[in-house]
Amino acid sequence: MPTLRKDPVSGHGVIMAEGRANRPNQLCRVETRVDTVVCPFCEGQEASTTPETLAFREPSSLPNSPGWRVRVVPNKYPALDGRTKNSTMVLPDNDPLFPTGSTSGIHEVFIESAEHLTSISQLSDAQIVEVVRAYRDRMCTVAQNRWIRSAIIFKNLGAAAGASLEHIHSQLMATSYVPVKLCEELINAERFLHQEKGCFFCQLVRRERETGVRVVLDTDHFLVICPFASRVPYEMCILPKKHASHFEKLSDSQVTRLAYVLRQTAACLENTLEEPAYNLFFHTAPFDMPTLDHYHWHVEILPRVTSTAGYEWGTGYYINPKLPEDAARTLRTGMVVTRGKNFAPGKDG
Amino acid sequence: MPTLRKDPVSGHGVIMAEGRANRPNQLCRVETRVDTVVCPFCEGQEASTTPETLAFREPSSLPNSPGWRVRVVPNKYPALDGRTKNSTMVLPDNDPLFPTGSTSGIHEVFIESAEHLTSISQLSDAQIVEVVRAYRDRMCTVAQNRWIRSAIIFKNLGAAAGASLEHIHSQLMATSYVPVKLCEELINAERFLHQEKGCFFCQLVRRERETGVRVVLDTDHFLVICPFASRVPYEMCILPKKHASHFEKLSDSQVTRLAYVLRQTAACLENTLEEPAYNLFFHTAPFDMPTLDHYHWHVEILPRVTSTAGYEWGTGYYINPKLPEDAARTLRTGMVVTRGKNFAPGKDG
Repeated sequence: MPTLRKDPVSGHGVIMAEGRANRPNQLCRVETRVDTVVCPFCEGQEASTTPETLAFREPSSLPNSPGWRVRVVPNKYPALDGRTKNSTMVLPDNDPLFPTGSTSGIHEVFIESAEHLTSISQLSDAQIVEVVRAYRDRMCTVAQNRWIRSAIIFKNLGAAAGASLEHIHSQLMATSYVPVKLCEELINAERFLHQEKGCFFCQLVRRERETGVRVVLDTDHFLVICPFASRVPYEMCILPKKHASHFEKLSDSQVTRLAYVLRQTAACLENTLEEPAYNLFFHTAPFDMPTLDHYHWHVEILPRVTSTAGYEWGTGYYINPKLPEDAARTLRTGMVVTRGKNFAPGKDG
Repeated sequence: MPTLRKDPVSGHGVIMAEGRANRPNQLCRVETRVDTVVCPFCEGQEASTTPETLAFREPSSLPNSPGWRVRVVPNKYPALDGRTKNSTMVLPDNDPLFPTGSTSGIHEVFIESAEHLTSISQLSDAQIVEVVRAYRDRMCTVAQNRWIRSAIIFKNLGAAAGASLEHIHSQLMATSYVPVKLCEELINAERFLHQEKGCFFCQLVRRERETGVRVVLDTDHFLVICPFASRVPYEMCILPKKHASHFEKLSDSQVTRLAYVLRQTAACLENTLEEPAYNLFFHTAPFDMPTLDHYHWHVEILPRVTSTAGYEWGTGYYINPKLPEDAARTLRTGMVVTRGKNFAPGKDG
């Protein structure tokens, strides 16, 4: 029978209802590609994007011209206003019925390959390491803006995950406010520290490794699990084993290790599900907070196998037809099969 | 430039970013139908469902046999446990890392036509009225269970909205707890009452009618608007104009009026968007609360034109590329065109 599971840190509730996987399914959706759109992210199309803020490129090459391996550019269609330097949700003279605010911040795109590739599992060792280095380096740079408090890096892969282009890319959105979901995590994790006399994430790493039932990958420095209160089938979380609250403080050697784990996790998902669409994002402590005893930066991966429906939108609870323990078992099998250029399974720096 | 809008009652924040509608779109999804599945909701297939809890049927016909017009059955693949009579999210002996609870409740399906129809816009006057009467009557009946505190009625239409069958149907989920989103609305609406000396919804109806920019339909008893902080393009909300906190207390004549407004709103969406998928749900005050001065029951309609992506999942904010003022203007045009059997535009009882 269905049971309710709660995530102590994010606070969300999930109804685990395995029986619902047996429903007859009359409707499905097929992803298609519009071939008339010229890919603006391919090498040679640099004029289609805004000028780069960072690029790893050949020494002899010029900015905004070919010869790059990873390129970071301001989003041409930004969801944040780069001109104003602060944002307040409720302005003093706000209408109580219709409150508005500004959305100041930085919105950038990481173009993760010069070639037209579609998954990070296709990247070589050197390429995936440079992608994660770009994530860390841009985080460090935007953190130096005193008006920026927090940033999120996220990847949308596939139309079901909200992607409009297939060329592999991620995005960074840095804001003068701390997003509500991150606030909730920070508050709940601090409460956990006081109540349970320890960091939630450190305890989670230890306990998940003890039973192993939700473990997908266990390397020297990272643990990949299907979270106990997974919102969607095959949800995964990548956690640093050693306590670390700020992603941007990652050392070069940790960047390399994380890069391989990220690629391996993406490949594992592709081996398990057919052409999976997914959302992936980094949660990390706000820049203006010191090293926190109660928080780990982490990566959340949400495959978009099912659609959120009326119950989720109307109540705030999720319904998941796949137990994370079963998902982890399947994903571990997928981890064995290797694919992709220079792909080294189990390798962790 | 993008601006931030907040919904004072649900509390969610939306970044309105019109410019993002101009992004080149290389990826899209096409809905397909699996023809091998026999529809379990068609007349003659009564044995495919669980036994009915309510049916409007011909006087001479027998329960769970042909001759019905609207049928309500327990969900064959329930997300709630119908056996236990209470649910507590955190049990006393719960593991702080892995809290669980039971999910007791009632999960039913409204089969809204004996014929294989796919939209409520196709229903006759008599049919749509019986559908809404079934909603109200089942709400009244489940409310009589003392262990049930709250219920939500929702409709998922189309694969993008999480539907697995196309035959028109809705669902009811009644629980011993009040869902988190409804709790938030009730708390915020009560705070609004104290701070602003009036019901948020009554003030909203007045103000939206004054400007008219977000009004889609304005009948004697109901107002249909695109909410100021719409989370998705073409989001709509149906509000009773007269203060009313509990949906199940609707009179027969109000049921008739709401039925026509619901059908007209669905038809309008179909005239505006090509084969739209959408989620629709009713928010209504908990059964064990008295008539509330600060709350209106209402219907929220969320077309699934765009996909929620990494930013939404990671931050809790929505990004909407369509201003509700523009959406309402387009929808008002769609309201003029009529379609569907016996469809009477503008009719409101």
